[in-house]
Amino acid sequence: MTHTATQPSESPVIGVFDSGFGGLTVLKALLTHMPHAQYAFLGDTARLPYGSKSQRTIARYAAESAQFLVNEQKAEFLVIACNTASALAMEAIQAAVPVPVLGVIEPGAAAAAAHSRTRNVLVVATEATVHSHAYAAACQRQGLHGVEKACPLLVPLVEEGWVDHPVTEQVVSIYLDELMAEAQAAGQRPDTLVLGCTHYPLLHKVFQSKVPVGVQVIDSAEATAAAAARMLGLAGRSLRADAVPAPSIRCFATDSVEKFERLGSRFLGHSVGKVSLVDLGG
Amino acid sequence: MTHTATQPSESPVIGVFDSGFGGLTVLKALLTHMPHAQYAFLGDTARLPYGSKSQRTIARYAAESAQFLVNEQKAEFLVIACNTASALAMEAIQAAVPVPVLGVIEPGAAAAAAHSRTRNVLVVATEATVHSHAYAAACQRQGLHGVEKACPLLVPLVEEGWVDHPVTEQVVSIYLDELMAEAQAAGQRPDTLVLGCTHYPLLHKVFQSKVPVGVQVIDSAEATAAAAARMLGLAGRSLRADAVPAPSIRCFATDSVEKFERLGSRFLGHSVGKVSLVDLGG
Repeated sequence: MTHTATQPSESPVIGVFDSGFGGLTVLKALLTHMPHAQYAFLGDTARLPYGSKSQRTIARYAAESAQFLVNEQKAEFLVIACNTASALAMEAIQAAVPVPVLGVIEPGAAAAAAHSRTRNVLVVATEATVHSHAYAAACQRQGLHGVEKACPLLVPLVEEGWVDHPVTEQVVSIYLDELMAEAQAAGQRPDTLVLGCTHYPLLHKVFQSKVPVGVQVIDSAEATAAAAARMLGLAGRSLRADAVPAPSIRCFATDSVEKFERLGSRFLGHSVGKVSLVDLGG
Repeated sequence: MTHTATQPSESPVIGVFDSGFGGLTVLKALLTHMPHAQYAFLGDTARLPYGSKSQRTIARYAAESAQFLVNEQKAEFLVIACNTASALAMEAIQAAVPVPVLGVIEPGAAAAAAHSRTRNVLVVATEATVHSHAYAAACQRQGLHGVEKACPLLVPLVEEGWVDHPVTEQVVSIYLDELMAEAQAAGQRPDTLVLGCTHYPLLHKVFQSKVPVGVQVIDSAEATAAAAARMLGLAGRSLRADAVPAPSIRCFATDSVEKFERLGSRFLGHSVGKVSLVDLGG
């Protein structure tokens, strides 16, 4: 999060970027908070997953994607709806475009700070995000102690559509047991769990049913949308359901447009419409 | 499989290519069949997974990788140890390099044909491989009827190291039940299951324990290595364990060299040694 002062506008163009389509959960939350804004969403599907790539490569890809949204799509504000890019490429993105940029990690940590009484927080995320320790660092800046856990099976389980499946419940339980054991071994008493991956909001109910009593689940997609609305001066303007306009969304992908259209609706909660193919090179 | 006549040489340079490091299971099988050969293995880890990309993109990436192995590493024979590239990019690879090229799909189907009495075969593979129907077509060329099933959770389970895990056994059972139901609904009586992904040899025992009695599991990595040895005139020359020389292997990756070195040994069965970073662009 860099710039904080922006011109209030009822319908700013907000660019939303992810390596794939998981970031559509962030777009969904943004639509709830700012239904009048215009959205341009880019999934860099030709080069996903960022999680297994080096910081240098991720920074280059993310900067190119950000420039497409700002230069071609005229985005006035950028949401990096990708934990890996938020963890590893915020500086490169901010250097590449002249608009305010918001990632998903600082808002997630800030929401955890607003909730936690014990100041001990758990974070589940992908391997690359955990390896970067970006959430632990963001928690520390909020006066929290964060214990992170990589959960590499959860994205494939969500993409397989097994969001209510017994296998997914078992996998979530195994990961949570290992995470709680690690936190307790470190003398922590966590009361907050941050879902630090844009796929995980689809597993919110499973996580909430499996966490120990007294642990609150925080969704970093929702926290990020709330932070974006505050930064744009549009917070607290949520409309009644019957007054919500048809959303203005343009979706772009660098590859696999059909898969994006097919799976995207699971994340967005309704059809993503026609997805346009763009070539960013590489 | 194109060219079949090659100069017999005791120690040809064999290039082995995969989008990641799963193809190391094919290299492991090649080492058993041809311990005296010299191997150059390239994992295009910067651009994996190929499975979610379009044919055009995969063909370009695979051709560039093949040219690196032939032009820079002087490979005289190329093994495409990647089901997706074998399914979607064989023509592009053959057009890009002047050496014989062998993929993993034809040998897998040929091995199934050599075993099956009912001529009804099951194939498990990644989503992209199944979507291409390359195994069904290869089975048809062998006079077999193949029923294919995408198993997208298995690669992440292998990479998580859960190869003997109860969750993996359940997932394999679920996939096999769905596949058997589909085959039976089509009036098939399958007696052969082809493991059509380079990660799956690590799950050979799980599959063998879960398939119905009378169904044989065929490993396309092993079938491919046997076919390569035949094409190179080196079949039947396996050495006694005490006479096997130290393998000559050079490993290259386009990104994430450390992860390659760390996880690669699981697939190869011993250390992959020092992995060199190469830049193919993109």
